[in-house]
Amino acid sequence: MDCNDKKKVLTGLTHECGVFGCMARGPWPTQLDVPQVICLGLIALQHRGQESAGIVTSEGKCSKKLNVKKGMGMISNIFNDESMQKLKGNLGIGHTRYSTSAASEEINCQPFVVHTGHGALAVAHNGELVNSEALRRMVLSRGVGLSTHSDSELITQALCLNPPEGEEESGPDMPARIRHLMQLAPLSYSLVIMMKDRMYGVRDPYGNRPLCLGKIVPVDHQNDNEADGWVISSESCGFLSIGARYVREVLPGEIVEITDKGCKTKDIVPRPEGKALAFCIFEYVYFARADSMFEGQMVYSVRMQCGKMLAREAYVDADIVSSVPESGTAAAHGFSKESGIPFAEVLCKNRYIGRTFIQPSTRLRQLGVAKKFGAIEANVAEKKIILIDDSIVRGNTIGPIIKLLKDAGAKEVHVRIASPALRYPCYMGINIPTTEELIANRLDNIKLADHAGADSLAYLSVEGLIKAVRWKIKKGKNDIGHCTACLTGEYPELPDW
Amino acid sequence: MDCNDKKKVLTGLTHECGVFGCMARGPWPTQLDVPQVICLGLIALQHRGQESAGIVTSEGKCSKKLNVKKGMGMISNIFNDESMQKLKGNLGIGHTRYSTSAASEEINCQPFVVHTGHGALAVAHNGELVNSEALRRMVLSRGVGLSTHSDSELITQALCLNPPEGEEESGPDMPARIRHLMQLAPLSYSLVIMMKDRMYGVRDPYGNRPLCLGKIVPVDHQNDNEADGWVISSESCGFLSIGARYVREVLPGEIVEITDKGCKTKDIVPRPEGKALAFCIFEYVYFARADSMFEGQMVYSVRMQCGKMLAREAYVDADIVSSVPESGTAAAHGFSKESGIPFAEVLCKNRYIGRTFIQPSTRLRQLGVAKKFGAIEANVAEKKIILIDDSIVRGNTIGPIIKLLKDAGAKEVHVRIASPALRYPCYMGINIPTTEELIANRLDNIKLADHAGADSLAYLSVEGLIKAVRWKIKKGKNDIGHCTACLTGEYPELPDW
Amino acid sequence: MDCNDKKKVLTGLTHECGVFGCMARGPWPTQLDVPQVICLGLIALQHRGQESAGIVTSEGKCSKKLNVKKGMGMISNIFNDESMQKLKGNLGIGHTRYSTSAASEEINCQPFVVHTGHGALAVAHNGELVNSEALRRMVLSRGVGLSTHSDSELITQALCLNPPEGEEESGPDMPARIRHLMQLAPLSYSLVIMMKDRMYGVRDPYGNRPLCLGKIVPVDHQNDNEADGWVISSESCGFLSIGARYVREVLPGEIVEITDKGCKTKDIVPRPEGKALAFCIFEYVYFARADSMFEGQMVYSVRMQCGKMLAREAYVDADIVSSVPESGTAAAHGFSKESGIPFAEVLCKNRYIGRTFIQPSTRLRQLGVAKKFGAIEANVAEKKIILIDDSIVRGNTIGPIIKLLKDAGAKEVHVRIASPALRYPCYMGINIPTTEELIANRLDNIKLADHAGADSLAYLSVEGLIKAVRWKIKKGKNDIGHCTACLTGEYPELPDW
Amino acid sequence: MDCNDKKKVLTGLTHECGVFGCMARGPWPTQLDVPQVICLGLIALQHRGQESAGIVTSEGKCSKKLNVKKGMGMISNIFNDESMQKLKGNLGIGHTRYSTSAASEEINCQPFVVHTGHGALAVAHNGELVNSEALRRMVLSRGVGLSTHSDSELITQALCLNPPEGEEESGPDMPARIRHLMQLAPLSYSLVIMMKDRMYGVRDPYGNRPLCLGKIVPVDHQNDNEADGWVISSESCGFLSIGARYVREVLPGEIVEITDKGCKTKDIVPRPEGKALAFCIFEYVYFARADSMFEGQMVYSVRMQCGKMLAREAYVDADIVSSVPESGTAAAHGFSKESGIPFAEVLCKNRYIGRTFIQPSTRLRQLGVAKKFGAIEANVAEKKIILIDDSIVRGNTIGPIIKLLKDAGAKEVHVRIASPALRYPCYMGINIPTTEELIANRLDNIKLADHAGADSLAYLSVEGLIKAVRWKIKKGKNDIGHCTACLTGEYPELPDW
Repeated sequence: MDCNDKKKVLTGLTHECGVFGCMARGPWPTQLDVPQVICLGLIALQHRGQESAGIVTSEGKCSKKLNVKKGMGMISNIFNDESMQKLKGNLGIGHTRYSTSAASEEINCQPFVVHTGHGALAVAHNGELVNSEALRRMVLSRGVGLSTHSDSELITQALCLNPPEGEEESGPDMPARIRHLMQLAPLSYSLVIMMKDRMYGVRDPYGNRPLCLGKIVPVDHQNDNEADGWVISSESCGFLSIGARYVREVLPGEIVEITDKGCKTKDIVPRPEGKALAFCIFEYVYFARADSMFEGQMVYSVRMQCGKMLAREAYVDADIVSSVPESGTAAAHGFSKESGIPFAEVLCKNRYIGRTFIQPSTRLRQLGVAKKFGAIEANVAEKKIILIDDSIVRGNTIGPIIKLLKDAGAKEVHVRIASPALRYPCYMGINIPTTEELIANRLDNIKLADHAGADSLAYLSVEGLIKAVRWKIKKGKNDIGHCTACLTGEYPELPDW
Repeated sequence: MDCNDKKKVLTGLTHECGVFGCMARGPWPTQLDVPQVICLGLIALQHRGQESAGIVTSEGKCSKKLNVKKGMGMISNIFNDESMQKLKGNLGIGHTRYSTSAASEEINCQPFVVHTGHGALAVAHNGELVNSEALRRMVLSRGVGLSTHSDSELITQALCLNPPEGEEESGPDMPARIRHLMQLAPLSYSLVIMMKDRMYGVRDPYGNRPLCLGKIVPVDHQNDNEADGWVISSESCGFLSIGARYVREVLPGEIVEITDKGCKTKDIVPRPEGKALAFCIFEYVYFARADSMFEGQMVYSVRMQCGKMLAREAYVDADIVSSVPESGTAAAHGFSKESGIPFAEVLCKNRYIGRTFIQPSTRLRQLGVAKKFGAIEANVAEKKIILIDDSIVRGNTIGPIIKLLKDAGAKEVHVRIASPALRYPCYMGINIPTTEELIANRLDNIKLADHAGADSLAYLSVEGLIKAVRWKIKKGKNDIGHCTACLTGEYPELPDW
Repeated sequence: MDCNDKKKVLTGLTHECGVFGCMARGPWPTQLDVPQVICLGLIALQHRGQESAGIVTSEGKCSKKLNVKKGMGMISNIFNDESMQKLKGNLGIGHTRYSTSAASEEINCQPFVVHTGHGALAVAHNGELVNSEALRRMVLSRGVGLSTHSDSELITQALCLNPPEGEEESGPDMPARIRHLMQLAPLSYSLVIMMKDRMYGVRDPYGNRPLCLGKIVPVDHQNDNEADGWVISSESCGFLSIGARYVREVLPGEIVEITDKGCKTKDIVPRPEGKALAFCIFEYVYFARADSMFEGQMVYSVRMQCGKMLAREAYVDADIVSSVPESGTAAAHGFSKESGIPFAEVLCKNRYIGRTFIQPSTRLRQLGVAKKFGAIEANVAEKKIILIDDSIVRGNTIGPIIKLLKDAGAKEVHVRIASPALRYPCYMGINIPTTEELIANRLDNIKLADHAGADSLAYLSVEGLIKAVRWKIKKGKNDIGHCTACLTGEYPELPDW
Repeated sequence: MDCNDKKKVLTGLTHECGVFGCMARGPWPTQLDVPQVICLGLIALQHRGQESAGIVTSEGKCSKKLNVKKGMGMISNIFNDESMQKLKGNLGIGHTRYSTSAASEEINCQPFVVHTGHGALAVAHNGELVNSEALRRMVLSRGVGLSTHSDSELITQALCLNPPEGEEESGPDMPARIRHLMQLAPLSYSLVIMMKDRMYGVRDPYGNRPLCLGKIVPVDHQNDNEADGWVISSESCGFLSIGARYVREVLPGEIVEITDKGCKTKDIVPRPEGKALAFCIFEYVYFARADSMFEGQMVYSVRMQCGKMLAREAYVDADIVSSVPESGTAAAHGFSKESGIPFAEVLCKNRYIGRTFIQPSTRLRQLGVAKKFGAIEANVAEKKIILIDDSIVRGNTIGPIIKLLKDAGAKEVHVRIASPALRYPCYMGINIPTTEELIANRLDNIKLADHAGADSLAYLSVEGLIKAVRWKIKKGKNDIGHCTACLTGEYPELPDW
């Protein structure tokens, strides 16, 4: 059975989020600016969700309680010097959340924190449980009332409810509890779980969502073997800005424990037998920041490689190659390099658009020009242009951009998309519009080019994307595997329960 | 006497603003979506000021009052469908304002509106009156109380106080009043002035601040000679997005009148005898959006040309040319083209930084890494990099960027600035830090390179900048003139009063 | 001509406001907590307006500028320790404003402050200029643009525009300027006018609006002849709470000057010949706080006397006399004393109603019970009740109250109103509903009793009210005069211009 | 063991709250305006808590989910027409909360709602569990994580965890679950518990907190036997305003079930053997609104009776009896009646004080005058006054009031308190200051009179209060019992566990 068979009844609350954790070396009080590190770490993950955020910290073994600050909106609006003061600690975790507006309430902000018989427990989650309904029924049947519909509360209560046999009175055997949860729910999540004196980083056995480890090195001795602390993060893009060095990815199924003594693998929970790895390929295409690392390579390089592949697959004669800034620029440089056609900027982005609450007039709708961009006429007029973007989803924005370029004098505009057509829903944490809304399900390339006013339009093939992604991965064939469900409809296979 | 001699006692409130006006053809009710046009026009000018904004409209000759909506913050936060409804009209003006926090109050929002014996009058102003003190004393001595310290109120009351001899009872002779004001205060401003049934566009005789005219053409007949309306704007960058075609710049000293019949030059007030034109060269370097037009050329092209000049003046051997996004990118492409060194992106900008209220910890300050950027290590490691930016002001941001690139493995980083060193204050509407804060007044190129951790650092020369700016201007020698006061200390000459 | 003939075209912005001023003895820095005194003084005047408020202070002769803080809402929301710090000074004035929502904007907040050739000038105003249109035309004709429609700005600019002949260069002759204004506009206002080192208290020649003087006495020597400072206020009710002793009323037409040396009458501008005094009788009936003093008597005593008069005029047999709390309680005690019928409370007021934004359902509308009150059934059941209130305006609230009492078992409810029926509009600063909305213009006593469900209903007569008001005033016949325009339609007579 | 032995470690979150429920007759859609009724019902309970409030409704048997709206602040700020629309239903419960600022967060707002295996469950709670720690340990030991420290979440999870043996699959046996909870935690609470199609009203076996039933009668047939619906409320004071008739109190230990068929007693859980009833006597003295009914009598009447008792116990010769408005007025009228000394108002309350954020200056602190009140000098000067208030807690406010009266000329001020001295903490839901803060523990009557500036001071005796409370109660000796712990230190006896 694959998860395509499953009917989702709950609103996913955990789409495309960012998780982050930090632990200082040694006992409290520590030298390391833990809340600052978490806050900057979350700012570097802000592209993964701008709806709400939260940070939870602890002063360590002797703490009576966790320090919590959560709020709606951007990191920079939620946290300030005053909240930083209250969040002092030597370990902590944070979360930044994307969500649809329906469930956009403070009660759903993460990390989710509960008081248990063994002290407080906090959980931050990126991903979506494909079998959340079964897990939910199990928790409810045990007599627990649930306050929200979020996977995070569900995970938290499931961790509370299931002590392994023989767990000692002195404290919970968290790795065993986590392992049990992973067996009940193998897909999909990256988790950071925190108790008052330790934290756990967990990646689902399919490796669907990303998670990586970093080491904070002393400012003055950047090459020192000694670490001042450890960080765990959805992406590595912010590591330099907090003085951390990239160590490695958390492995699919791995449970990493971080204490004030250091960082240790507690277990690697295997995938259901015979099932393949399934790292989300859309992280490369769209979500991740270009300066992040997955599978030993930079996202920027993969995107550039996609552009090169696209040049081979869908070359067309033109004066310049350009991009929709900033999403298509890496691929455009790749296309330019491969094709030999010079790169030039044609669009100027208005950085101050904001979220307007003004309905366009009929005239402006007819006009159909992108107010978010301006045309650099000097580079556009009388030119044949290849315009690269990273993806097309609903297909609403490309038409006005082409109109703008044509109004500015472009002779031809050929659209090239550096990823395959998006056709299928995702049940693993990516918020994709309904099948009907996906333009590729309604219009083929020729019709879409016509609809958008382009002179031609082509996508990168699935094979081309996979080739670009795996170009430089140095792994055995069995250690590699990507989820392309949204492009191909081939979902990761779940075990037969 | 030049304005360097003048001591400014008032806080300038009108720095670097954007002004905009729109008038529909024919009588009310009109087909044209005037408030929408103004709102989009201001959004396209948002880079000139994000502190407050306002729109004033009128339904024409028979209007009893002007419709006014002003507020603090960004256009998208101030205006919504409800305010658009209340702003319906067939003509209107708008303003978006930059200011230092001190005077950041709602009372200073523009346009400034007063009720006069001849009906309401609204004024939007970009620039700064270099002799505002003398004008202020004149107005006060006439027995008028002033509510604010803003130049805009001063201009408005000065227009009210001074009817020309022989002005008829039927209505004010606004061109004569404006001309009188321009003689009292020749520098510096672009103004849009509005009465209930007409508006005026005014540029100071020195041509210091920009202002241009556009024509709104019917959606279906983009080449029709007929206009649906006229617009007047600080910059042309938003014209395509509102369906307008660029017509021309308002001339230095020109008074343009726009009514429902069309657009007419009422007067061209000459500069004081023997004084040169002084269009602000910093509009090319820094302020204007790259897709705007001044003096018949695109700003983007000038910036690219600056990069080419810089390549000739300050070449250095390197593997790649890159830029601080997005301010240095046009110049970097120019440098690359001229030098033959390939362009590659090395920095990834965090678009979600926001305005944080968190003091960095000591460790993070020591670390000194730019949190606003990430390094694209694949393009950086082991590379000699030429890094282009448009300007250096206080010199605080370049050091952390170089640190980031070095941490990411850059072998060498050579900084090249596509404008001359900034050394002098401006009294004409540009908010420049104090002389002491300007880094170029404290450190020469070698010391600054050292201070910032660069392997070398060079500015474009003043001659290089002027050459780049005038490369394509097709005008006689007398019709050309740029203010380079902030770079050279040579201020426009005022008349001897 | 009386002011009934005048068409009001402007929205009155100055209805029922409170004005306050305070000046410390001796030079700055002073011992007296001037901003605290003003703030508490305004809190004691909060019943006169809850829409916006403002305070302006000065540090005296050497001040470069006035300190200003204004805002929308209640005093307690606008002012805090931080604003108090910024308002430090040794003199200052304040204002609390009532207004209709239309003009409820920050720009209309008082005191109104302008910069003049002689330094800053601030004005706070209670009342309404009956000939504001003429004054406005005069100001506009002089070439001044007006920002608002408020009388306060008009007064301020009029004071700026009209220096008396022979005024010395050294400074303005404010008493002469004020006198000139009073001749142009004799009705109606109480003003406090402030310059950096002095203030003026002004009452219109008809004495329409109240204004009184107090002296702040040292805490330890309450009987000392020495004053620590002087205050000027619309009402005296807050004097004890700021440590001030009531001195006297400002006289009709009087201009009082307060400096750091003391308090001095500068002029008493006479009424237009043959015209009578016209102190607003509704201050006694409704506006003023019960513990304020006018014309040598307490408002509470007058209200009690009104109840006694009412007992004589409209006695009815009953078990108890009661009141609508708290507006009718003083009169009810008077009625009880005069009639011998015992007083008992029958209504319990919900102090926490707030301003709800919920439409009542049809059922609740039909039910028609006052949600603001509860019935004290133990005092109500089986009783014949005389229910006293101070006034009836629209007549919407009395019906539900009677319904509540009847539901709680009252046998009879006889309504007695301790003032005459309200029938006419006011042009002197009182916000009275339109003639059609005034219930007394639509229903006579019998019909209104029927409509409200009362067993009978009666008003106090105009003669009864006047008798109650003048009961204890010790003045000659010529020195007494009350405006009863809203009750009788007899407006104060203006001079024939 | 009594609960005085218990150490409280948790912050009580449920002090002095108000609970309310409403259910319409018959199936959805119903005629009854259920959300409006709840909202008005809560407004009438607003005096029991102004910190936060919430309403939860259901459309009945077929509802998929409960409608929830909670928020910080007053009812009138939280609910509006929009939220009323979303809260439509034919049953619902509401809560208004008082709390100390520490725990003043949105997460603690009630009603507390959880999803269970049997559908949603909502709980609103007034009171405080004296053995919450034991219950909490039990819940945590069962593997449930708790999000808050509130008794309400604890009660809710306890109801989820404990199905009675033999509970059918078809649905939970809520009466059995509630009974089980009541045996675990016998003191103190009034609860309204709601499922999608029914609700329960529960009062603890000691009868400590109040709860009563009402019947909504058709508007047109107020005497009809048919009900349109049922309400359940902490107090009866709002019943007339929602068209409800008072039916009876919920009995101590009673579980009332309300469905669309009507209202039925499901059980009466007995008190632990030999233990006495303990209805909070402070509800009569202080908390309840004067127009509420407890034990068959009006609160107003009891307060008046307290005044009569006080006149007998602590008479003193005087000219007038008066009160601190409005808290002491009922008792003052009783004192006046019993003593024959006439009642007169001496204090005028400023209804607009608000919560100020201004530190009084040293001078104002020395002055020590009550800014919340003004003196009605006409009734005060030269008078001997008996001043009645309902209680003295910290003793901070009475001194400034006496100072005000003396400043206004009072000859003598004799303070009489219509309740005994407050000396002991409460563990049953009343927020009483620490023992040290209670003035009666520091100063005896003579010293307190001296400290406050009174000529004499006396409290009502405990016996006097009990006599006043029981004056009219028609019950057998065994059915009567009041908790006087805060006055006497005699706490209700708990069973020996």
